[in-house]
Amino acid sequence: MAILVVGSVAFDSIETPHGKVDHILGGAATHFSLAASYFTDVRVIAVVGEDFTAEHEAVFERRGIDTTGIERAPGLTFHWTGAYSGSLNEAQTLGTDLNVFAAFEPKIPEQYLDSEYLFLANIDPVLQSRVRAQMPGVKLVCGDTMNYWIKDHRENLMKVLPELDVLLINDAETRMIAGEKNMVKAAAGVMALGPKALVVKHGEYGATGFFSERAFAGKLSRPFRAPALPLEEVVDPTGAGDSFAGGFYGYIASQPELTPAVFRTAMFYGGVMGSFAVERFGTERLQAVTSEEIKERFELFREISHLDSGNEGSGE
Amino acid sequence: MAILVVGSVAFDSIETPHGKVDHILGGAATHFSLAASYFTDVRVIAVVGEDFTAEHEAVFERRGIDTTGIERAPGLTFHWTGAYSGSLNEAQTLGTDLNVFAAFEPKIPEQYLDSEYLFLANIDPVLQSRVRAQMPGVKLVCGDTMNYWIKDHRENLMKVLPELDVLLINDAETRMIAGEKNMVKAAAGVMALGPKALVVKHGEYGATGFFSERAFAGKLSRPFRAPALPLEEVVDPTGAGDSFAGGFYGYIASQPELTPAVFRTAMFYGGVMGSFAVERFGTERLQAVTSEEIKERFELFREISHLDSGNEGSGE
Repeated sequence: MAILVVGSVAFDSIETPHGKVDHILGGAATHFSLAASYFTDVRVIAVVGEDFTAEHEAVFERRGIDTTGIERAPGLTFHWTGAYSGSLNEAQTLGTDLNVFAAFEPKIPEQYLDSEYLFLANIDPVLQSRVRAQMPGVKLVCGDTMNYWIKDHRENLMKVLPELDVLLINDAETRMIAGEKNMVKAAAGVMALGPKALVVKHGEYGATGFFSERAFAGKLSRPFRAPALPLEEVVDPTGAGDSFAGGFYGYIASQPELTPAVFRTAMFYGGVMGSFAVERFGTERLQAVTSEEIKERFELFREISHLDSGNEGSGE
Repeated sequence: MAILVVGSVAFDSIETPHGKVDHILGGAATHFSLAASYFTDVRVIAVVGEDFTAEHEAVFERRGIDTTGIERAPGLTFHWTGAYSGSLNEAQTLGTDLNVFAAFEPKIPEQYLDSEYLFLANIDPVLQSRVRAQMPGVKLVCGDTMNYWIKDHRENLMKVLPELDVLLINDAETRMIAGEKNMVKAAAGVMALGPKALVVKHGEYGATGFFSERAFAGKLSRPFRAPALPLEEVVDPTGAGDSFAGGFYGYIASQPELTPAVFRTAMFYGGVMGSFAVERFGTERLQAVTSEEIKERFELFREISHLDSGNEGSGE
């Protein structure tokens, strides 16, 4: 079933120990869409400037992503400049030029209205709420946010959280929303503010799913831990979290029903797509991964985390 | 089969957000022995002072641990004072009174010489080497170390590493030994210095096992990720790593052969014993856990990490 995603399409200038790139295609909605496109139909709502060319649009089109909702506005596209050093765990933002994104007012094309799955990528919670309100018939709503909204736009964020079935954020964001350092208590605190379930992304340590009583009619009470793949080479971590979200939500939307087993498997696919994303700068790897590679890597994720895996080769 | 462990038996004075305790029984060899005692026979080599009473010794004896090798020396027992705050991830050492431990010279009792498994807990690498040399017939050698030895006693540490089948350390120690921030490369760097396999403990994020070509005849090349249990309440993290090592190595020693499957399962039991350890101050919980509780928690670890677990209750 189709996912509607609203978020940023941007140009990124990035420096990592592996090199430097200038104005490459990026943005949360871009990484999310590409990752999700391997599982289901994806429709994007975003705004870009006059520097967004047919070549950029073709990146979406080649993956069958519906770009009807990518609005062209006079001016330049959102541009982010960042750098990573050391263990590449955290980006240092060197510049944020919002450009046309500053006045972003999401408009939902007629043909997007029957989307059953909604993903509210990391944008102003006021806009997240507005989009959510225009999609009353969706089956599932999943969202993301970041420290900036948590800290300085808390009141607006609090209005979005009750609208979410699943919130995907990282450790620091979880602790910041809840004002609590213990992860289990922090997760409970976040879910008390609205989301039925919470996926906390731990970067190189994988992710943990937490479930409130309102998720799965209380049948899934234990958290679930999905691994990340230990990677010898992380070329560019930009978009890893959005790619995780795309793999996670794309898999969910491809399934007839969201069962606990589907949720768990989706967390593995999130890790799988995140692990591809960081292998190259920007969206390069996500543009060209194959179904066979996704299948193989999923099996690898199982192998490195399951007791009864065939991890030992023959004869054991 | 019997494990011989050499390490510290100490008194700990600890402050955490849950309270404060003074001079309670602790030390790496203590936590390790208690955790391992649920799986196999354990023999301890350590030194204590005149303040170590029959009551303290009874803690070992009640768990069937052989204390013949706990030497009494004139003076006071090693005393560590530390505090934890916030998310309880790292201890702040407030005082280290080595006392009788400063002149520790491990002596191996005659009846310990047939031990098939040797655990070199975190002590001076010179002593680790000396004990290792006196146990030429052991089947498996496993060890630990810490930043102090890595930084200031590197040359001596380098002499112990080739003697180890398995080294158990944390993320920071792995990166420090290898001088490399990427975990996969750091793990390979550490194993190039000697250990056939490496278990990196990630605290609340579980642990990863890495295997060199020399482990399992190269049959197990992928890393393995074991979860940690998300805990709502960590009363005292002191000894969690040693308890992990005890559960890990105790399980291995209880099995006829160290296969990849045994190694994976051992990593789960490490997490299980670590999760018990932190539930109470000091060794309180490890003194009184039951086999049934260990079995249940092992199943819980499987449930929170395996795709095909019965995590959803009935009907799914």
